[in-house]
Amino acid sequence: MDVRVYITPKKGILDPQGVAIERSLPALGFDGVTDVRVGKFIELQVAVPNDTPAGDTRGEVDEMCRKLLANPIIEDYTFTIDDA
Amino acid sequence: MDVRVYITPKKGILDPQGVAIERSLPALGFDGVTDVRVGKFIELQVAVPNDTPAGDTRGEVDEMCRKLLANPIIEDYTFTIDDA
Repeated sequence: MDVRVYITPKKGILDPQGVAIERSLPALGFDGVTDVRVGKFIELQVAVPNDTPAGDTRGEVDEMCRKLLANPIIEDYTFTIDDA
Repeated sequence: MDVRVYITPKKGILDPQGVAIERSLPALGFDGVTDVRVGKFIELQVAVPNDTPAGDTRGEVDEMCRKLLANPIIEDYTFTIDDA
């Protein structure tokens, strides 16, 4: 299964990378850009037996996000799972 | 406009974060996970005049990616633009 995880800093959490990008853009000629938030995009493959219910795979990926990929205290995450 | 940029390390480029995650997962009880690649997910808002052709906005975001958000030597990027 082809898994894509999207991780973003929670609203209200300071995002220094986003602030740095937002401040740099006008100097490069890009105006009108606001609300820059920098997160992570993680792609991975999960091998699951053919008869695994989709819900089990979702549960496993969700646990993976909570335990390792994201920091749920300061980050939100979503993910998609595709057959591949 | 609601812009989302997805940045991934190019194929063949070493991705130490991905390697670290892949090695950590079995110790946490997650088996069968391979091809972990860690990239960036950037969200931003672009203010454009109402009569701006969509192609112009795409061109501007593409230039922003090439000049600041991504490093095109070692990273690939894609983006989506939605009315918001």
